[in-house]
Amino acid sequence: MILETEGITTDIFKKCHDFDLADKYREMGIYPYFHALESKQDIEVIMEGKRKIMLGSNNYLGLTTRPEIIEAGVEAFKKYGSGCSGSRFLNGTLTMHLELEKELSQFVGKESAVTFSTGFQSNLGIISAIVGRGDYVICDRENHASIYDGCKLSYGKMLRYKHNDMQELENMLKKVPENAGTLIVTDGVFSMGGDIANLPEIVRLAKKYGARVMVDDAHGLGVIGEGGRGTASHFGLTDEVDIIMGTFSKSLASLGGYMAASEEVCDYVRHNSRPFIFSASIPPSACMTARASLKYLKEHPELPVHLRELASYAREGLKAKGLRIRESDTPIVPIYTYTPENTLRKAKELYDAGVYVNCVLPPATAPNECLLRTSYMASLTKELIDEAVDIIAEVLLKDND
Amino acid sequence: MILETEGITTDIFKKCHDFDLADKYREMGIYPYFHALESKQDIEVIMEGKRKIMLGSNNYLGLTTRPEIIEAGVEAFKKYGSGCSGSRFLNGTLTMHLELEKELSQFVGKESAVTFSTGFQSNLGIISAIVGRGDYVICDRENHASIYDGCKLSYGKMLRYKHNDMQELENMLKKVPENAGTLIVTDGVFSMGGDIANLPEIVRLAKKYGARVMVDDAHGLGVIGEGGRGTASHFGLTDEVDIIMGTFSKSLASLGGYMAASEEVCDYVRHNSRPFIFSASIPPSACMTARASLKYLKEHPELPVHLRELASYAREGLKAKGLRIRESDTPIVPIYTYTPENTLRKAKELYDAGVYVNCVLPPATAPNECLLRTSYMASLTKELIDEAVDIIAEVLLKDND
Repeated sequence: MILETEGITTDIFKKCHDFDLADKYREMGIYPYFHALESKQDIEVIMEGKRKIMLGSNNYLGLTTRPEIIEAGVEAFKKYGSGCSGSRFLNGTLTMHLELEKELSQFVGKESAVTFSTGFQSNLGIISAIVGRGDYVICDRENHASIYDGCKLSYGKMLRYKHNDMQELENMLKKVPENAGTLIVTDGVFSMGGDIANLPEIVRLAKKYGARVMVDDAHGLGVIGEGGRGTASHFGLTDEVDIIMGTFSKSLASLGGYMAASEEVCDYVRHNSRPFIFSASIPPSACMTARASLKYLKEHPELPVHLRELASYAREGLKAKGLRIRESDTPIVPIYTYTPENTLRKAKELYDAGVYVNCVLPPATAPNECLLRTSYMASLTKELIDEAVDIIAEVLLKDND
Repeated sequence: MILETEGITTDIFKKCHDFDLADKYREMGIYPYFHALESKQDIEVIMEGKRKIMLGSNNYLGLTTRPEIIEAGVEAFKKYGSGCSGSRFLNGTLTMHLELEKELSQFVGKESAVTFSTGFQSNLGIISAIVGRGDYVICDRENHASIYDGCKLSYGKMLRYKHNDMQELENMLKKVPENAGTLIVTDGVFSMGGDIANLPEIVRLAKKYGARVMVDDAHGLGVIGEGGRGTASHFGLTDEVDIIMGTFSKSLASLGGYMAASEEVCDYVRHNSRPFIFSASIPPSACMTARASLKYLKEHPELPVHLRELASYAREGLKAKGLRIRESDTPIVPIYTYTPENTLRKAKELYDAGVYVNCVLPPATAPNECLLRTSYMASLTKELIDEAVDIIAEVLLKDND
C-alpha cells in the first residue's frame, strides 16, 4: 500500500489493511461481535434467527419494554417530533430537557444537573471542562474508557492507581503540586468486575488533600443506594461526592447522560464544555423515556432490591454448580475465563446453546484476566435464570471433567 | 475558595467560582443561550411562551415533523422498545442498524458505513482510530469542534491551515515526514460561514502528497450534491474522498452519525474506535427516523433544490434591504455583527421581535468576526421568510440610519 508520490509515502490506511485480528477470529468461528437482534432488547431475544436468553444487557430495570415507558416516548414523538436539530446550548433545548435535569438533580440529591447526548460524551464533557491546564485528574485503573478519553481530551495531567488501591491513591495525592487542582474520578459500580468503589476512603482522602470527587454511576443508578439513587447514596455520602455522572442507556432505558453537582459547577460546564455545546440534544422521545423511567423508579423503590435479589439468585446458582464467583451486591456477575481464546470459545458455545453474554478482552482487561460478563435484569424470571445457569455450568465446567 | 488542608491547596472548582461571563450577559439582559422551546422543532416555534420564526435550526429538510417520519419512529418505538441498552459492538446491534449502514453507504456512494451514537462522537471515533502515533492530521481552521476534539483524542500530530487556504495546506503537506501517514480533514459545508470546501484542490493535493481525505458532511448531506448526496457528489469527487462523515441530527431528523468508506477502513474503525465500542447504540426509533428520512430524501431529490432556492430567496431579500451578504449555495446565511456585544444585542432584539437566530462568538470565531447565523429549512414559506427578512433588516440596519 505504499503510494508512489512525492513527499509523503506512507498510507495512513496501512493500519486498516494490516488489521487481521477480526478476520482471524472469524476464520476460527469464534468471532463474538455484532450479533444482530431481530427483536426488542428484553430478557429473551431473537438474535440471528434464534432465541437467546439475554445476559449481556445493561437494561437493568427492564424498562425498555414497559408499557408506561413506551407510551411516554410515543406521546413525545408525536407531539414534539423526531429530533431537536440543534445543541442544548442553542436551539435544541426543550422545556422537557430542563425538567429532566431538575428531576435528576432532585433524585440523586444535588443542586443542579446537566444532560448530555450520550453517557460517553458526559464523561468527555465533564472532565475536559473541569480539568484544566495544570490540574491533575486521578483515576482508578478499571474506570470506563470514556473517563480515560475525557482525561485525554482535557489539558490536565492524568494519574492512575491500581484498582481500588487506596494506598496508591494516597501516594498520588501526595505528589500533586500545591498550586494544582485535583479531581479524583471513579466508577461507582465497576462495569466489568461488578464491584463497588471504596467511596468512604476515597472521600476521606479527597478531604485530607483538598481534592474533589467525581463518581461515574452509569452502573450504579437504579441498581444500588436508597431506591436506586446510586453509589453515593449507598454509602450515605451524597453531600461528600462533588460530581455524580450517570447515563440514560442503562436503568433509564434511553440514550444520553448527565452530571449532577452544585449550580456553580453545572453552570460552568454548560458554558465551557465542547462535547456539551457542540452536539445536538437528545430527541424528545429519548428525553421523555428517561423522565418516565426515572418516575417509574421513584414509584418503585423495590425494583433495585428485586434486581439485586435476582442477581444474588444467579450468583448462588452458579456457585452451587461449582463455579467460582466473586461476592458482590450488583447485577454484574463476571465469570473468569482468563485467556482471550478460551473466552471467545466459551462465549461461542454459550451463544450456540442459547445464552448471550459479553466477552471482555484486552484492552478492557489484562491479557490473562479475560472474562465473560453476565448481567441481570429486574424483569428476569427465576425459571429463565435457572435455564441460563444450567447452560453456563455445562459449558464452563465441561473441560474440567 | 482555598481549602485549608495538608498537601493540595488549590480547589479545582475555583474556575467555576470565578466564571462570570454568563452572569455578566444575564445582568446586561443579552444572554442568548438555552431559550427553551415549548413546541416541536419547526419553522415557527413557541419559545419561552412566545412565537418565533425559527432561523436557527439544522433541520434543513424540515423532516422532524413529517407524518411519514413520525410514523416510522413511533412504529419502531412500539415494536423494538425505547432503547438498546448496549454498544453496537456487543448487545446493542439491531438488524435495522445494519440496514441503515447499508442504505447510507449506497446513498453516498461508498462500499461500507459505520453508525455512531452522535455526530460529535463520529468525528471523535473516526479520527482517533485512524490517526495513530506518528501520523499527521491536517485541518481547516474553521472545522467543527468535534474534529478538533477527535484530533486531540488521537495520538497523531495536528496541523491547521487558514480557512480554505490551499497554499498553506500544500506547505503543510510538504512538511510531513516521509514515514508518516496523513489525513486531511475538512468540513464539506462550513457550519458557521456556510461556504463549501475547495474539495477539488484538496483532493489534488492529497493525491500529490499521498494523503487521505475525510469530509465532514454534517451540513452537506441533504443540502448539496446530486439529490442531497453531499459535498463529494457536488464536485463529482465521491471516489476521491476516502471517508465521508455525516450526522443524523440535521437533514435526517434524528440523533447519531456515521462514516462511509471502504469496507477495510470501516472494519478497522469498528474494532479500534473507543467512542464507537464503548457507547450505547442509538435507540430503535432514532435509527428508524434516520432510515425513513433517508428514504424520503431519496424519493424527493427535488427537496435539496427547493431548500437552496428558499435560502437564495432569503439571501436576495436581505441584500435588497441593504445588508451585505456573502454569496453561497447553502442554506446557511451568516450576517456579520463583528463584536461580541453587538452580536448579543442584535440577537436579543431579533428574539424579542420574533426571530430566533444563533450567535456565533469566540472561540467559534475570531473576536471581531462574530456573526448571527441564520439557517433555512425546506419547509419554510416565502411569506415567513419575508416576515423574517423585514425584522432582520429593521434590527440590523437601524443604528446605521
